[in-house]
Amino acid sequence: MPTASRIPHPAYQAKIMSADAAAALIPAGANVGMSGFTGSGHPKAVPQALAKRMETLHAAGEDFQIGLWTGASTAPELDGALAQAHGVSMRLPYQSDPTVRKQINAGQMQYTDIHLSHVAQLAWFGFLGPLKVAVVEVAGILPDGRLIPSSSLGNNKTWLDLADHIILEVNSLQHAGLEGMHDIYYGTRIPPHRQPIPLVAPGDRIGDCYLHCDPAKVIAVVETSEHDRNSPFSPPDETSERIAGHIIQFLQQEVQAGRLPEDLLPLQSGVGNIANAVLIGLNKGPFNNLTAYTEVLQDGMLEMIQSGKLTMASATALSFSPAALEEFNANIDFYRERIVLRPQEMSNHPEVIRRLGLIAMNAMIEADIYGNVNSTHIMGSSIMNGIGGSGDFARNAYLSFFMTPSTAKDGAISCIVPMVSHTDHTEHDVEIIVTEQGLADLRGKSPTQRAQLVIEHCAHPDFRPALRDYFDRALQTAPGRHTPHILSEALSWHDRFVKTGRML
Amino acid sequence: MPTASRIPHPAYQAKIMSADAAAALIPAGANVGMSGFTGSGHPKAVPQALAKRMETLHAAGEDFQIGLWTGASTAPELDGALAQAHGVSMRLPYQSDPTVRKQINAGQMQYTDIHLSHVAQLAWFGFLGPLKVAVVEVAGILPDGRLIPSSSLGNNKTWLDLADHIILEVNSLQHAGLEGMHDIYYGTRIPPHRQPIPLVAPGDRIGDCYLHCDPAKVIAVVETSEHDRNSPFSPPDETSERIAGHIIQFLQQEVQAGRLPEDLLPLQSGVGNIANAVLIGLNKGPFNNLTAYTEVLQDGMLEMIQSGKLTMASATALSFSPAALEEFNANIDFYRERIVLRPQEMSNHPEVIRRLGLIAMNAMIEADIYGNVNSTHIMGSSIMNGIGGSGDFARNAYLSFFMTPSTAKDGAISCIVPMVSHTDHTEHDVEIIVTEQGLADLRGKSPTQRAQLVIEHCAHPDFRPALRDYFDRALQTAPGRHTPHILSEALSWHDRFVKTGRML
Repeated sequence: MPTASRIPHPAYQAKIMSADAAAALIPAGANVGMSGFTGSGHPKAVPQALAKRMETLHAAGEDFQIGLWTGASTAPELDGALAQAHGVSMRLPYQSDPTVRKQINAGQMQYTDIHLSHVAQLAWFGFLGPLKVAVVEVAGILPDGRLIPSSSLGNNKTWLDLADHIILEVNSLQHAGLEGMHDIYYGTRIPPHRQPIPLVAPGDRIGDCYLHCDPAKVIAVVETSEHDRNSPFSPPDETSERIAGHIIQFLQQEVQAGRLPEDLLPLQSGVGNIANAVLIGLNKGPFNNLTAYTEVLQDGMLEMIQSGKLTMASATALSFSPAALEEFNANIDFYRERIVLRPQEMSNHPEVIRRLGLIAMNAMIEADIYGNVNSTHIMGSSIMNGIGGSGDFARNAYLSFFMTPSTAKDGAISCIVPMVSHTDHTEHDVEIIVTEQGLADLRGKSPTQRAQLVIEHCAHPDFRPALRDYFDRALQTAPGRHTPHILSEALSWHDRFVKTGRML
Repeated sequence: MPTASRIPHPAYQAKIMSADAAAALIPAGANVGMSGFTGSGHPKAVPQALAKRMETLHAAGEDFQIGLWTGASTAPELDGALAQAHGVSMRLPYQSDPTVRKQINAGQMQYTDIHLSHVAQLAWFGFLGPLKVAVVEVAGILPDGRLIPSSSLGNNKTWLDLADHIILEVNSLQHAGLEGMHDIYYGTRIPPHRQPIPLVAPGDRIGDCYLHCDPAKVIAVVETSEHDRNSPFSPPDETSERIAGHIIQFLQQEVQAGRLPEDLLPLQSGVGNIANAVLIGLNKGPFNNLTAYTEVLQDGMLEMIQSGKLTMASATALSFSPAALEEFNANIDFYRERIVLRPQEMSNHPEVIRRLGLIAMNAMIEADIYGNVNSTHIMGSSIMNGIGGSGDFARNAYLSFFMTPSTAKDGAISCIVPMVSHTDHTEHDVEIIVTEQGLADLRGKSPTQRAQLVIEHCAHPDFRPALRDYFDRALQTAPGRHTPHILSEALSWHDRFVKTGRML
């Protein structure tokens, strides 16, 4: 399909230019807000052209870096390209790119890791500094100038509203049938002018299908025809299937106990293979008429919509494998009736999450015996990806699960430790911990009660004796027995791993 | 004033009995939900009678303990009496009593420390187990059976709704003029039936002035005439005044920069002497037409209402010194126009806090150089009080301050440490740290940027060299430089304090 047909607007047609020409309009030192969420809907051409320009300038001895703001993670042609060009001084609010991660952990790039629901409002409040340029991928432009959003929404509305200048990438490979799938709430305000968000069910439409932007701010329109990241999923391994099994069994028990409705409550699922395994398990499981209110819609949920198990899903991004994308594109009219894409400040909004009463399921790096969770750091110092939406969901959900295999690195690492090396979710926010070993239901429990459940239900048997020994000795020797710790040993498992390659 | 005149309802009059007789109706092993928030509005007679009964039974070799749920902290005649009788097996969601604290830290009492906005819904969801008895202080009963609430609301609505049996204490020392000051929202539901909370300004009234209860559940009415805790405040010391000065100066800068309206946004203030000093400072300061949406209304805010600086205040509890109580009672008609008391699930509701855009100011025990905050634990193991509402407010506020003197124990302890010994507020939730030394504005900053600000602006000069040394060596030697830590040293300051009485 020729892209030009997606820009039936003379003023915008007049601004069509090459990616190189558009990238030349981005000034050094600017904060740039780009689209993109979990490898979908990010600009594909301008970031690479900008990276090329940076490399040329750097080779000539000139400084050229930007502050890079996005929805969440992007893809090699955005985060990867700009990082390889050493072109990013400050990154926010989330990343999962190997080159970016390496530079952050080398101290070469500053990174601010922010709750995804907070980003838009922090930008509006002026707390993140001025936003010079927005670079946003869209699926098309209407004759009246409104924009058909792409496969993710993220912070696009906010970047378009706040930036001084706008560069649009119009991607003809995004299915034209995305039109009508989005719901962009234009009722947000800055305090003291905020009103209740009128959303009471996952499928509610409270806004507009289109993004608005001031044509006078648009300085370039770039035509592209490029795929999203579209990473394939591994089929669930035995560990993931066992985690999924524990969760489904627990949900059944909660229904039987009258603490959950028969068709559950809206599901939120983090990204990755464990989350996908849980969804595959739910698709074969006993629950029907399910809904989802989540961040990213991946293969597992698409299959649940296809099968009829999931009747409605709200998200801020679509992130499919190539096979799932083919299914989605082939039946987009069917899916448009069952999927709503929203800005991330809505998909992750504490007000809505608490009102709907989500069942939140998120992966973690490690948990400690007292129920504190680390979602972001390896051995206390190095960033992995970021907190993403896990804090928005865990704090405000009806039920909140944190999931991990009980060990990592072929058994060298226990994912259940005496004390987490970094805390992203505190003891006050963690309800249920699940590993392939089992599930610890921490609701209403004191720290020492939690410790016994986490050690006996979740830790790998190879690490249980050492965890019991730590807990027992802490109970004997700590200055207090509310959360007994041996401070000289609390982080020794991590320290030993750094020094020897094994926690024990 | 004779109390009987406050019970003009024949069915309730028929249930008037002694505290001893009422306490005899509470079964062993029951979860008991009592009123009380920050030493106000708690039952005064039944808990002491229950403690006496427990002591008698214990002396006879019988077990008798209860699970004790409240709004927040209470007073010696509730928490203190029951703990001295060794009568509490499980305490939630907050406490500040010396005997309770001692038993928790001795491992003799289980304690579940919960965000105060979460308590009511966790009880409704059934996650805390069954609630057998509610013991609630009220200021009076109407002829139609509705209850005039007392000086705090806390979780009273929830306890009255959920408990199998109800014991009312009618306290004639609570001013009759409290009638009409409360706003009890009866629109709460369990998901999936929740609706937006229709509250858009601190003074909005969205509910009922009275608590409802099923008269068939009331098993006893006990007449009392007892004061609330009414602890006096110390006048602000120089440290508190300097902290207050930094905050007020910062707020002025934010107004000048256009990031805050001239009359600010609604204030939330934690309890205690530092918070009170900030309020005293604001009362003398440049801002006018202020409002408050907070948990506890203390002397500082009362003075601001009296002076006209504060035009409206919403809270869940009044907690005054004897002198402030006298002023309040003498002019209760004036204050009733300017104060709204709500259930704590409303005063602390994330939906409302984020909508109103609060300026949140809370005390802490310690912060680390990367901006993580410990609000609850002494040296990692011992509980102090609890998280209270600080998580509800800090996470959802427009601006969030955490305040502490830079040192404790006559300089033996630095309140700025390499790594907090317990995390209650993560790096993702902490915006501004303030000590008497200065203020660190962490908004939008990376961890290493934060470290420099926290060390140079907030740490005491006696501890700055050691903190700089830790940070510098961590930058050199840590496996990652995003949040560089030396794991074998990160908690060594706390460990040294436990062993030697000094952090350095």
